[in-house]
Amino acid sequence: MEVIMIIGANLPNIPWQERPQGCNDIVWRYSNNPIIHRHQIPGANSIFNSAVVAKDGAFVGIFRSDDKAMQQHLFLGKSQNGIDWDIEHDPMPLFNQKEEQVGVACGYDPRVCWIEDRYYVTWCNNYHGPTIGVAYSYDFKKFYQLENAFLPFNRNGVMFPRKINGKYMMFSRPSDNGHTPFGDMYLSQSPDMEHWGYHRYVMKAEGWAWTKIGAGPIPIETDEGWLLIFHGVGTTCNGMIYSMGAAILDIDEPWKVKYRCKPFIFHPEEIYECVGDVPNVTFPCATLQDAATGRIAIYYGAADTVVALAFTQVDELIKYIKDNAL
Amino acid sequence: MEVIMIIGANLPNIPWQERPQGCNDIVWRYSNNPIIHRHQIPGANSIFNSAVVAKDGAFVGIFRSDDKAMQQHLFLGKSQNGIDWDIEHDPMPLFNQKEEQVGVACGYDPRVCWIEDRYYVTWCNNYHGPTIGVAYSYDFKKFYQLENAFLPFNRNGVMFPRKINGKYMMFSRPSDNGHTPFGDMYLSQSPDMEHWGYHRYVMKAEGWAWTKIGAGPIPIETDEGWLLIFHGVGTTCNGMIYSMGAAILDIDEPWKVKYRCKPFIFHPEEIYECVGDVPNVTFPCATLQDAATGRIAIYYGAADTVVALAFTQVDELIKYIKDNAL
Amino acid sequence: MEVIMIIGANLPNIPWQERPQGCNDIVWRYSNNPIIHRHQIPGANSIFNSAVVAKDGAFVGIFRSDDKAMQQHLFLGKSQNGIDWDIEHDPMPLFNQKEEQVGVACGYDPRVCWIEDRYYVTWCNNYHGPTIGVAYSYDFKKFYQLENAFLPFNRNGVMFPRKINGKYMMFSRPSDNGHTPFGDMYLSQSPDMEHWGYHRYVMKAEGWAWTKIGAGPIPIETDEGWLLIFHGVGTTCNGMIYSMGAAILDIDEPWKVKYRCKPFIFHPEEIYECVGDVPNVTFPCATLQDAATGRIAIYYGAADTVVALAFTQVDELIKYIKDNAL
Amino acid sequence: MEVIMIIGANLPNIPWQERPQGCNDIVWRYSNNPIIHRHQIPGANSIFNSAVVAKDGAFVGIFRSDDKAMQQHLFLGKSQNGIDWDIEHDPMPLFNQKEEQVGVACGYDPRVCWIEDRYYVTWCNNYHGPTIGVAYSYDFKKFYQLENAFLPFNRNGVMFPRKINGKYMMFSRPSDNGHTPFGDMYLSQSPDMEHWGYHRYVMKAEGWAWTKIGAGPIPIETDEGWLLIFHGVGTTCNGMIYSMGAAILDIDEPWKVKYRCKPFIFHPEEIYECVGDVPNVTFPCATLQDAATGRIAIYYGAADTVVALAFTQVDELIKYIKDNAL
Amino acid sequence: MEVIMIIGANLPNIPWQERPQGCNDIVWRYSNNPIIHRHQIPGANSIFNSAVVAKDGAFVGIFRSDDKAMQQHLFLGKSQNGIDWDIEHDPMPLFNQKEEQVGVACGYDPRVCWIEDRYYVTWCNNYHGPTIGVAYSYDFKKFYQLENAFLPFNRNGVMFPRKINGKYMMFSRPSDNGHTPFGDMYLSQSPDMEHWGYHRYVMKAEGWAWTKIGAGPIPIETDEGWLLIFHGVGTTCNGMIYSMGAAILDIDEPWKVKYRCKPFIFHPEEIYECVGDVPNVTFPCATLQDAATGRIAIYYGAADTVVALAFTQVDELIKYIKDNAL
Amino acid sequence: MEVIMIIGANLPNIPWQERPQGCNDIVWRYSNNPIIHRHQIPGANSIFNSAVVAKDGAFVGIFRSDDKAMQQHLFLGKSQNGIDWDIEHDPMPLFNQKEEQVGVACGYDPRVCWIEDRYYVTWCNNYHGPTIGVAYSYDFKKFYQLENAFLPFNRNGVMFPRKINGKYMMFSRPSDNGHTPFGDMYLSQSPDMEHWGYHRYVMKAEGWAWTKIGAGPIPIETDEGWLLIFHGVGTTCNGMIYSMGAAILDIDEPWKVKYRCKPFIFHPEEIYECVGDVPNVTFPCATLQDAATGRIAIYYGAADTVVALAFTQVDELIKYIKDNAL
Repeated sequence: MEVIMIIGANLPNIPWQERPQGCNDIVWRYSNNPIIHRHQIPGANSIFNSAVVAKDGAFVGIFRSDDKAMQQHLFLGKSQNGIDWDIEHDPMPLFNQKEEQVGVACGYDPRVCWIEDRYYVTWCNNYHGPTIGVAYSYDFKKFYQLENAFLPFNRNGVMFPRKINGKYMMFSRPSDNGHTPFGDMYLSQSPDMEHWGYHRYVMKAEGWAWTKIGAGPIPIETDEGWLLIFHGVGTTCNGMIYSMGAAILDIDEPWKVKYRCKPFIFHPEEIYECVGDVPNVTFPCATLQDAATGRIAIYYGAADTVVALAFTQVDELIKYIKDNAL
Repeated sequence: MEVIMIIGANLPNIPWQERPQGCNDIVWRYSNNPIIHRHQIPGANSIFNSAVVAKDGAFVGIFRSDDKAMQQHLFLGKSQNGIDWDIEHDPMPLFNQKEEQVGVACGYDPRVCWIEDRYYVTWCNNYHGPTIGVAYSYDFKKFYQLENAFLPFNRNGVMFPRKINGKYMMFSRPSDNGHTPFGDMYLSQSPDMEHWGYHRYVMKAEGWAWTKIGAGPIPIETDEGWLLIFHGVGTTCNGMIYSMGAAILDIDEPWKVKYRCKPFIFHPEEIYECVGDVPNVTFPCATLQDAATGRIAIYYGAADTVVALAFTQVDELIKYIKDNAL
Repeated sequence: MEVIMIIGANLPNIPWQERPQGCNDIVWRYSNNPIIHRHQIPGANSIFNSAVVAKDGAFVGIFRSDDKAMQQHLFLGKSQNGIDWDIEHDPMPLFNQKEEQVGVACGYDPRVCWIEDRYYVTWCNNYHGPTIGVAYSYDFKKFYQLENAFLPFNRNGVMFPRKINGKYMMFSRPSDNGHTPFGDMYLSQSPDMEHWGYHRYVMKAEGWAWTKIGAGPIPIETDEGWLLIFHGVGTTCNGMIYSMGAAILDIDEPWKVKYRCKPFIFHPEEIYECVGDVPNVTFPCATLQDAATGRIAIYYGAADTVVALAFTQVDELIKYIKDNAL
Repeated sequence: MEVIMIIGANLPNIPWQERPQGCNDIVWRYSNNPIIHRHQIPGANSIFNSAVVAKDGAFVGIFRSDDKAMQQHLFLGKSQNGIDWDIEHDPMPLFNQKEEQVGVACGYDPRVCWIEDRYYVTWCNNYHGPTIGVAYSYDFKKFYQLENAFLPFNRNGVMFPRKINGKYMMFSRPSDNGHTPFGDMYLSQSPDMEHWGYHRYVMKAEGWAWTKIGAGPIPIETDEGWLLIFHGVGTTCNGMIYSMGAAILDIDEPWKVKYRCKPFIFHPEEIYECVGDVPNVTFPCATLQDAATGRIAIYYGAADTVVALAFTQVDELIKYIKDNAL
Repeated sequence: MEVIMIIGANLPNIPWQERPQGCNDIVWRYSNNPIIHRHQIPGANSIFNSAVVAKDGAFVGIFRSDDKAMQQHLFLGKSQNGIDWDIEHDPMPLFNQKEEQVGVACGYDPRVCWIEDRYYVTWCNNYHGPTIGVAYSYDFKKFYQLENAFLPFNRNGVMFPRKINGKYMMFSRPSDNGHTPFGDMYLSQSPDMEHWGYHRYVMKAEGWAWTKIGAGPIPIETDEGWLLIFHGVGTTCNGMIYSMGAAILDIDEPWKVKYRCKPFIFHPEEIYECVGDVPNVTFPCATLQDAATGRIAIYYGAADTVVALAFTQVDELIKYIKDNAL
Repeated sequence: MEVIMIIGANLPNIPWQERPQGCNDIVWRYSNNPIIHRHQIPGANSIFNSAVVAKDGAFVGIFRSDDKAMQQHLFLGKSQNGIDWDIEHDPMPLFNQKEEQVGVACGYDPRVCWIEDRYYVTWCNNYHGPTIGVAYSYDFKKFYQLENAFLPFNRNGVMFPRKINGKYMMFSRPSDNGHTPFGDMYLSQSPDMEHWGYHRYVMKAEGWAWTKIGAGPIPIETDEGWLLIFHGVGTTCNGMIYSMGAAILDIDEPWKVKYRCKPFIFHPEEIYECVGDVPNVTFPCATLQDAATGRIAIYYGAADTVVALAFTQVDELIKYIKDNAL
C-alpha cells in the first residue's frame, strides 16, 4: 500500500508521544494533559480554544482566555517545544484600527494560517453579532486588521494554507446568535481577502454531529486531498457534547467531500474534558504536523476551561477515514 | 422652505390618486385595492410581495406567487398603467444555470433595480437556507444568474440604483432559518456583483419594529439623501404585525442614518391586510416615482395573499420623517 | 378515458351544487355557507368538526360543539337534506360505561363509519391525554363504548368502511399532547376492534402540509383505490393554516400510497374560514357520496367555529390527484 | 325570589340598550359598536382598554391609546352620555413627579376608582418591568402619583371602591415579563396606599381561561357580595383568545370566591373583536351601573384596537353566575 | 412479622455483596463498579442500559452499546458470575425479517423476559419514531421478530414474566419524539403478542420524578404483589437527573398501584454516575433475584456510559416502600 | 491608606484560614471542604444553601436539606466552631401558624438576620408560587411566622441588619416560576415587617452574571458602605453557572450602587462544586465576620449538594471591588 504523505514542511520538533500500549484509538491523548491550566494567565478564568503555528524553529500561539468578568480576549504566547507555553499577561492590543466598521477588539476561538508571506489570524469577532474577524501579521508584532469576512451570524472561520485556483478559501459556519443549535459548514472564496463570494455548501450536521459542525484546524494538504479535522456537536437531554470528526476534501474543489469519517475520531472522556465551565467539550483549533514522519499534534480546548493535546499519524488517520467513510 | 426633489426620471404615467378628503395620513391607500387578487394566475394560491419597474413607457413586474402546493415562484408581468397587470401563467424559467452552486430556481420577495445598463433582480433564494439570489437582464427576456450574494441565512437583499464610490451596494437582513424572530439591516459592497465585503451595520429593530426590519423598495435618491422605505415587525401575543417605516440615509455613506422616522408610515388596517394566509401584513417591495411631481406609488403585499397599492408625496414624506425623527 | 366510479351506495339526495360558472377549483364551496352557525345549539360557543352519515334515506350527524366553558361535547343531529340540521340540545350521554378504563364522556372531532351491521363512532377521547375513543350503535339510540384503540397521544382516528384482509383498519395520527406541532398518518389493524397491531406508516407531513397531517372523512372506495381526503397543516409566523389534501391508496394494502396530490385541494379563503376562534382552518370530517353520479359532498369545520359544505366530483378529483401527484 | 341589588349610586343616564329580540346572552353588545375608533385621537394607531367613571352627572374616562410608534399613552376624555367621547389630543402629563423611583410616565390598561374623597387611577406602569402604577386626583385636573404598589412583574391592578376592614384592597395578577403565558389573581391590602401586604390568592386560571386571568372593572358591591367581571385567556394553536368571566366574592373577605361562573359571559365574535392589531380580544376595564335599575354598562377594548360597549342586568347576571357556578 | 417472599426461582449464584458497614441505604452499590467499561466492546463509545437474565445456571445479557458514530446497537453477552461479561464484538443481526413493517435492526434500552417457554426481548425500536420492538428466542441463537407493540412515540416497553388473566402484559411510556420532557406509565394487554389493547394508566410522573417515569426491570412477583423498580426523572436548571423509584402493584390487576414509594431508592452520586456522556443518570434495566434468600441484584446504566450493579433485599425493600408510601 | 473597617461585632472565633501560599485570589477556599456532606442528616439527599449566625459565643444555622423525595426542608443546627455542625434530624416545625394565608411550612435558601432584639428568618416560601417567607425568633426555639413579604414570583429575600431611615429593608429578586432565566435585584421597605413598598431597583443581571442575580448573605456594614456579596448566573450551552459577585452600596440609600465589581469573586472549580445534583453552582447564603480583624467567612452551597466555606479579608475585598468597579 502506498503511504499517504503530508504535503508541507518538516517540523521534527513538534510535540509527540507514541500511541500508548493497548490503545487502539485513532487519536490518543498526551499523557500530561492538560498542557495549559485555567489560571496560567494571571486573572484568567480559563484558557482554551487556541491556535498554534510553527515559526522560526519554535512555536507561536494565539490563546483564547476568558477573564473573571467572562470577557473573551486573545493572548499571544511562545514555546520552544509546543508544550510549555510562555503566554503574555496582557491581551493582544492589535485589532482596533477600524472599530466602527469591524467591531471592538475582543474575540474568541482563533485560528492562525500561514499563506505565502504572512500569518493570517481569523477569529470569532463581535460586530452586532458573531462574525469572522480577519487580520494578518508578518512577525506577530504588528497586526493589520482587515474587514470582517462575512455578515453575522457566523463562527469558525478557517482558512486554507494556500490559494486554490487563484483565490483565498475560507470555511465558515453560518448560524444564528446565542448558543446556536444548528449549523453546517460552507466554503467561501476571495480574490483579495476583503470581498468574498462563490459560497459553497460543504458538509451538513448529521450522525453523531447532528446538532452542528464547524471546521477546526487549518486543513492539512496530503496526497489524498485536504485532511479536515472538525468539531461536531450532538445534544443529549443534559446538553451538548463536542467531539472531533475528520474528512478528506478534493484538492482543487475543496467544497467536494471525498470521504467523511462516520465515527468521531475523538470524544470527551477524561475528567478535564467532562468537568469544567462547559462539560463534555473537546474543541480542536490547530494542528502541528511533520511531513517527514506524518505525525500530527492536535491542540484542543477541553471543557471550555483548559488546553490539551492529542496525537495521530496521517497515514493511519486517512486510512481510518476511508475505511469508515459515511 | 425648499422643496425636496427626487433625483431620477420623470414618470408621469405612474398610478396616482390624491389623498382622500379628510385623510391626514402620510401614506394613503388606493381606493380600489387590492389591485391583484390571489387567483389572478391560474393555479395560484396567492400573489403578494412583488416588484415593479418602469420600462419603455410602460411597466414590468416580477411577482411572487405561491401555488397550491405552497411552493414559491416568480412570475413576469406587464402593465400599461401599473394597476392592471397581465401576468404570465408559467413561472420564470430563468435562474437555473448553475443549480449546484446557487440553489434551485425558486424564490420569493423579489426586488428589481435598474443600474447603468441592465435590470438586476434580487430575491430570497434557497441554497441550504435562505440567502440572496442575484440575476440580471437587459430586456426581461433573457436572464443571467450570478452567484448568491451572501452565505445563508439572509433575506431582503435590496440594491441601490447606482454605484456609490465605485461599488455596488446592497442591503440585507441576516438572521436565522425559519420564521426569524430577530434581524437588523446591514449594507454590503461589491466591486463586481459577485464578491461582497465591507459589511456595514445600518439600523436595528426597535420601537414599533422591535422584532425585525428589512429594506423594502429600491431606495429613492433625493436632495436630502436616500429615502428608504422598509418593513418592520412587532410581535403581539397573537403573532407578528408587518408595518412600513421610513428613513433618510447619507447620500455617500448610505449606512449612515440621517433620520429615522419614529412612527410607522403605514400599518395593516383594511380587511385584505388583516385577513389572509398571514394576517396583519403590509410588505412593500417596490415603488414607482415621478421626479417632476414627487409622487410615489408604493406596491405592497397584503396578508401574504394579494398585491395592493398606496401613495405618498416625496416632500411631505421627507418632512414627516424629519419632523418625527427618532 | 375510463370513468372512475365510487364503489358504494347510491345516495341521490345528498346535498349538491354544480361548480359555479368561471370556477376552476377542484373542490368548490356551497353558496350558502356556513350551514350550521356557532350558536345553533343553545349555550354553544361553536359547532364545527362534525361527522354525518346516511341512514334510512335521510342523514344523521354527530356534531362537535364547544360550550361557553370551552368544554367539548358531541351532539346528535338529524337532517332530511343534509343541509338543514335538527341538532339535539343535550350532549350525547352515551360513552360512559367504563369511565375508569377509557376516560370521561367528552370528546371532539368525531367520525362515523358504517361497517357491516352497525355504525362505529371514533373521536378524540381524553384518557390521561388525547387518544382514540371507539363506540358503536345500531340505531343512534343506544351506544356501546369499546376500549380506546390506542395509547395516548393520538388524534384523528378514522376507520375504513369495511374489513380488509379480515381485519378492521383505522388511521390515526400519533403525536404529543397540546397543540401538536408535528404528526404523520399511520394505519393500524384489528381482528376484534379491541386489540390493535400491525401498525403501518402511511404518509408524512410535507410540502404545504409540512407541520402535520391527519385523516379526514372515511375513505371512499373507488375503482382506482381508496380515495382519502385529509387535513394538512402548515405554519406561518402568525399561526397554523389547515387545508385539505387528497390521496389514493392501494385497495388491499391501504398503507401504500399510490398517488398523493401535491397541491392542496381546499384552503381557507372565506371570512368564516379565516376569522373565528381559530383563524384559517378548514377541517374535513365527513363526506356523503353518490355512487351513481360520483358526487361528493364534503363537510368541514371552519375556523373551529362553524360547519360548512363543499363539493367535488369523484372522477375529476381522482384525475386531478393523478395529474398532480407528488 | 329576592331581587339582587347594586349597593351604590343611582346613575340614570348611563348608556343602555335593552337585550335584542331573540338574544338569550347574559351580556349583549351595543348595536353601534365600536363606540371609539382607532384614529379618534389624531396620530393614534388604536384606542382600546380604557376606564370610565361617573362624575358630576356626566362621565370622565382615561383612555389607553397606542400611537403610531406603538408607544402607550393615557388620555383624558369627557362625555355627557357615555357613548360620544371628547378625548384630549395630548397624553396626560401627570405621572412624573418621581420618575427615578416609579418609572416614566407611560402606561396602559388604566382603571379608575372613586374611594371616599378622590379618584384613584391604577395602570400598568413600567419600572424595569411591568408593575402597578398608582395616582389620585380630586378633579381630574391635578394628579398626584404614589409609589408603585408592587414589585414587577405585575399587571391588572384593580382597586375596590371602599376600604374593607380598614384597609385598601387591590387585585393584581403577578406573572413574568413579555406576553405572559400564565397568571392568577391575587388580592393585596394596604393601610396607606403605599405599603402593601397580606397578599391573598383569589382565583386561578382554569377552564376556558386556562392560560391567565386578570381583574377587569372595579368590583360592584351587591347584596350577594362583590360582583367581579374579569378577563380570561385561553390559547389555541393560532394564539390567545380574551373573553370575559364573572364571579361573586365574599363581601368582607373578598379573596374568598363564593361563586365563579363556569362559562364565559362574553367572547369575541364580531369582526371588530376578531380582526385588528390583536385578533380575538375582548378586554373589560370599566363598568357604569345604576343601582336603581340594576343596569350595567361594560366598556371593553376590542382586538387591542377600538373601544366597545356591552350591557347586562345585575340580577340576571348574578343569577346566571350562581346557576352556572364552577 | 411475616417475611415477604419472592415468587420465583432460586438463583444462588447471582452477584451479591452485603450492605456495607455504616450504610443505611435501602439499595447499595457494588464496591467494584462499574462492572462494564465504555470501551469493553472494540469500537464502542459506551455500554450502558442493558438487560441480563439467568439461563442454564449462568447468565445471558443483551447490552446497549453506542458506537463511535453514536449509533445504537444491541450486543449479546454471557457470564458465569453476572459480573464478568464476555460480550460479542458484533451487534446482534437478529431483528431484520420485516424491515419495511417494523423498522431497521437498531435499538436501545433492551429488556429480556422469560415467559412460559421462551425469552422475549423488548427494546426501543425506531419505526418513524421510537416505539417498542418485540422479538423472542428459545436459545439466544435464533431470534424471531414480532410486530412492534405500539404506535410511536413510545419507550420503556417492559413485559410481565407471566400472563395475567390469560393475557400478556406490557408496561410502556408513551410520550413524544426527541428528549421527551414528560411521560407517565401505562400498561397494555395482548392475547397474542401482536395486537394490544385494554390500555390502562398506571402511574404518573410526580414528586422527585416530576418530569417523566418509565418501567425498569421486569417486575418481580412477591407475596405482596408485583415489585416494580422504575426510573424517574426530575429536571434542574442544569438538566435531568435519573434516579430509581419503587412501587408494589396489585397481583391480578397490575395497573392498580398498592404502594408507591415516596422517596427515590437510588440516586446518582458516584463519579461514574455523575460524569459521562449524560451526567447524573442511573437507569435500571434488569434485576436478578434469588427466591431463597430474597437477594436482588440491580443492573443499571450509569451516565449513559457504563454498566453498574447495586443490591437490595426484597423484604427490606418492600417494607421500605410500604413505610414510605406516597 | 485608611483601612476599611467592618461596623459590627467582634467575633474572634469564626472559622478562619489564611490565604494559601501562592494564591492570589480575593476569596479562597477552606482546605477541608465541603464542611457538611450530603447525607449528614439521616434520610437527606443533600444539604446546601444554608444560613448561619453567631449566638452566645457559638453559632446557629438554618440548613436547607432536600430529602430523598426531593422535598425541601429547613433544619436547625448548632456549632461551637462554625465548621463542625450538629444538625437536628427533624425539619423545623415552625412556620405553620397561618397556612392558608402564607403557604405550607416548606422552604429553601434561608437567610438569618439579627435586627435589634430578634432573629429574622427569610426563605423562599411556596404560596401558589415562590415568594419570600418571613418569621422571627428570640431564641431559635419558638418561631413566629409573619405574612409573606411579597406577591409571587420572588426569591432571594435578604434583609439588612438594621433599619435605615426608620424602615426595614429587604432585597429580593422578582422573576417568574420554574428555573427562572432572568432576574434583577430590588430593594423594598417596610415600617412594620408586614406591609412593603417604596420598591427600588438596585442592580441588573449583566456581564458574567448576565442571566440573573440575587442577594446572598446579609449585607455587611463598613466604613465604605454596605458590602454586598451576591450570586450571579451565566448560561452556557450546557447549563447555568452560579458564581459570586460583590458590590458596595450607599449606606443611607442602599439601592444606590457605589461600586460593582466587574469580575466575579468566586467561581465553581473544585469537583464538589462542579459535580452533584446541579453542576457548577457556588451559592453564598451567609457570612460570619469579625470586626476586629476584618475576617469574613463565607458559607456557600456547592452543586446544590453540600455546604462549603471560603474566606476573604474585608479591606482587601473592598479595595478589589473599587479597583475593578464596573
